[in-house]
Amino acid sequence: MEKIEKKLILTIDDDHDTRALFKMVLEENNFNVIEAANGTRGIEIFEAESPDLVLLDLRMPGITGFDVLHHITKISPTTPVIVISATDSIDDVVESLRFGAWDFILKPMQTYNIMLHRVNQVLEKSNLKKQNLEYQGLLEDAINKLQNDLKSGQDIQIKLLPDSTVTFNGYQFNSLILPSLYLSGDFLDYFAINDKYTAFYIADVSGHGVSSALVTVFLKSFMNKCIDDYKQSNNQTVLDPGKLLQTLNQDFLNEHLDKFSTLFFGLIDHNDNKLIYCNGGHYPFPVLRQNEKCIILESKNTPIGIMPDIAFENISVQLEENFFLAFFSDGILDILPQDSLDEKINLLNELCMSDRETFQNFISGLKDNSAGLPDDITVLTIEKG
Amino acid sequence: MEKIEKKLILTIDDDHDTRALFKMVLEENNFNVIEAANGTRGIEIFEAESPDLVLLDLRMPGITGFDVLHHITKISPTTPVIVISATDSIDDVVESLRFGAWDFILKPMQTYNIMLHRVNQVLEKSNLKKQNLEYQGLLEDAINKLQNDLKSGQDIQIKLLPDSTVTFNGYQFNSLILPSLYLSGDFLDYFAINDKYTAFYIADVSGHGVSSALVTVFLKSFMNKCIDDYKQSNNQTVLDPGKLLQTLNQDFLNEHLDKFSTLFFGLIDHNDNKLIYCNGGHYPFPVLRQNEKCIILESKNTPIGIMPDIAFENISVQLEENFFLAFFSDGILDILPQDSLDEKINLLNELCMSDRETFQNFISGLKDNSAGLPDDITVLTIEKG
Repeated sequence: MEKIEKKLILTIDDDHDTRALFKMVLEENNFNVIEAANGTRGIEIFEAESPDLVLLDLRMPGITGFDVLHHITKISPTTPVIVISATDSIDDVVESLRFGAWDFILKPMQTYNIMLHRVNQVLEKSNLKKQNLEYQGLLEDAINKLQNDLKSGQDIQIKLLPDSTVTFNGYQFNSLILPSLYLSGDFLDYFAINDKYTAFYIADVSGHGVSSALVTVFLKSFMNKCIDDYKQSNNQTVLDPGKLLQTLNQDFLNEHLDKFSTLFFGLIDHNDNKLIYCNGGHYPFPVLRQNEKCIILESKNTPIGIMPDIAFENISVQLEENFFLAFFSDGILDILPQDSLDEKINLLNELCMSDRETFQNFISGLKDNSAGLPDDITVLTIEKG
Repeated sequence: MEKIEKKLILTIDDDHDTRALFKMVLEENNFNVIEAANGTRGIEIFEAESPDLVLLDLRMPGITGFDVLHHITKISPTTPVIVISATDSIDDVVESLRFGAWDFILKPMQTYNIMLHRVNQVLEKSNLKKQNLEYQGLLEDAINKLQNDLKSGQDIQIKLLPDSTVTFNGYQFNSLILPSLYLSGDFLDYFAINDKYTAFYIADVSGHGVSSALVTVFLKSFMNKCIDDYKQSNNQTVLDPGKLLQTLNQDFLNEHLDKFSTLFFGLIDHNDNKLIYCNGGHYPFPVLRQNEKCIILESKNTPIGIMPDIAFENISVQLEENFFLAFFSDGILDILPQDSLDEKINLLNELCMSDRETFQNFISGLKDNSAGLPDDITVLTIEKG
């Protein structure tokens, strides 16, 4: 049988017979009892023994029950005190309740069941309060532990991302990633390959959180490998977005991760001021603004990691001296207030055609409302001039 | 000012004056009150209005207060009921408490403060119970959300690990990873490079959990790259453990992840039955048992990702026709009961010299006690014959 720890009750009463009777009834009902014959002794015992409950006579010679009540509620506000009062001193009861007594018992008692009921009621309430605090504590501890784990992962992921604002050869990159849950399945990078080329990509691994974030490390490693292979053995894959996606597609499938990813890979040719890109399923399509015109960079390739042995098509776009190119990941569609997809896409296109301030205000609004996003949101802009 | 919703109290009493008085006092104290003049009407109103508390007269003509109490506690056990009884019917009170009444009030009342005290006490207790349930619910929801995120990450990490038992060219690999918190900073892999070589590695990224797991994906990608480079362009790095660690060391430092990793990389030459290895800080040192002898594979290289431009030394060991090689990650040292490091290492060495059953029992014991490990634990064994 499980051993339940007995609760300790302190009775403070100048009347010997009352104390003896309380002690007998309470001990019969599995409580431990200690007695004090006056207020001074009661306070001493209270401080020494920290009882679970105090039964306190209000009218005693010397230090009164009110004094004891003041003292106990001051040093231990969570310990329940039940005051005992004569039936004809109901004003005492009301006053003691105002001063922090949890309940009261009127003498003479018709049955000790009532005293027991009061004691049990008050202990139950005290227990509920303790449980509440415990739950709060447990809640915080458990969540802190998991959150710290996720936050330390987030720190690593942030280190894998580029600085949010970087300029290569006059092409300025700005990026923002808002994860829905610490770690992001959205990922991006931009880097100068050499004097002639700058490359960038924006990816959205299926799902979000830790599992997708692990896959983004694969993406980053793959891209690093492509750059190394170019620098060390003049492997041209990094200069051929379509071939790069084809290779990555096969690598992805080989790992059997049950994950796929959209990926837009772009290569900017500095000399010709030209963009060569391949879009593996990135949506919404990026919007290019130049010469006051809005060009949607449409394409029809599938995401990577779904179908083996498929080709990925390169598309080339002539850039003007001044241009602005904007990417959003599809997480943006979940939070736009418009009813239809068409309306949402129109809004994004209009936004890309608007002035810098309007665009920046929109981005600031995203940042301010990034708590509890349903999906990761990424914004990447590239501009010149 | 914040608007606090008023609590709704149902009074069931056949005495009009009592109801009127209760209503007045309660409404003065910011409660809403609905009245029922008999038990049948009381039950109807209870079911229609779901009050927050019921004040119930026990003695009524028709359906008694006891019947109403039975009904209410049955259909809504969380709604507090306070029974009202004549002072000379204290047995009724005791019985009603046994049947689920939360508290009682004796008539005639000397002051309505006592009735208010009972009402407030009981509502406070009811509120504490609700809060407890809410905390429990919040606790479970928040933890589930974070745990699901971590579990889905764990699924991906498991997919990156090899099958736990694999045989290449007669060399049998067995492995076990026990993460301390869903995702592991320990990692390992083994793979046949071609007919002539089988390779394996065991790594322990600093820290544990998500952040370290992200870095293990880097390791895996790096190893994949080495294998590809060998197969595609005959790059010999994967056949030179020391050079492999040197390259990885530089890659690690280039990423600025503030993480380092121990790494033991071994290459088994099938033709010569020889092990060529480089150990970057893996500890405890692996133990090789062959010809009834115990050989500790000591070495002095540092972990990778700490110091740039350092060399990593290869060591070669002749294997016998029958051998058993065992690796433990340092997480094992945290849970062995021995006092000193020497004693722990001795135990592991003795274990490697013991028979298969003793070793297997030890591993089973680890699995059975893997909840809440302070650090990840990995065991890798390689054997032949």
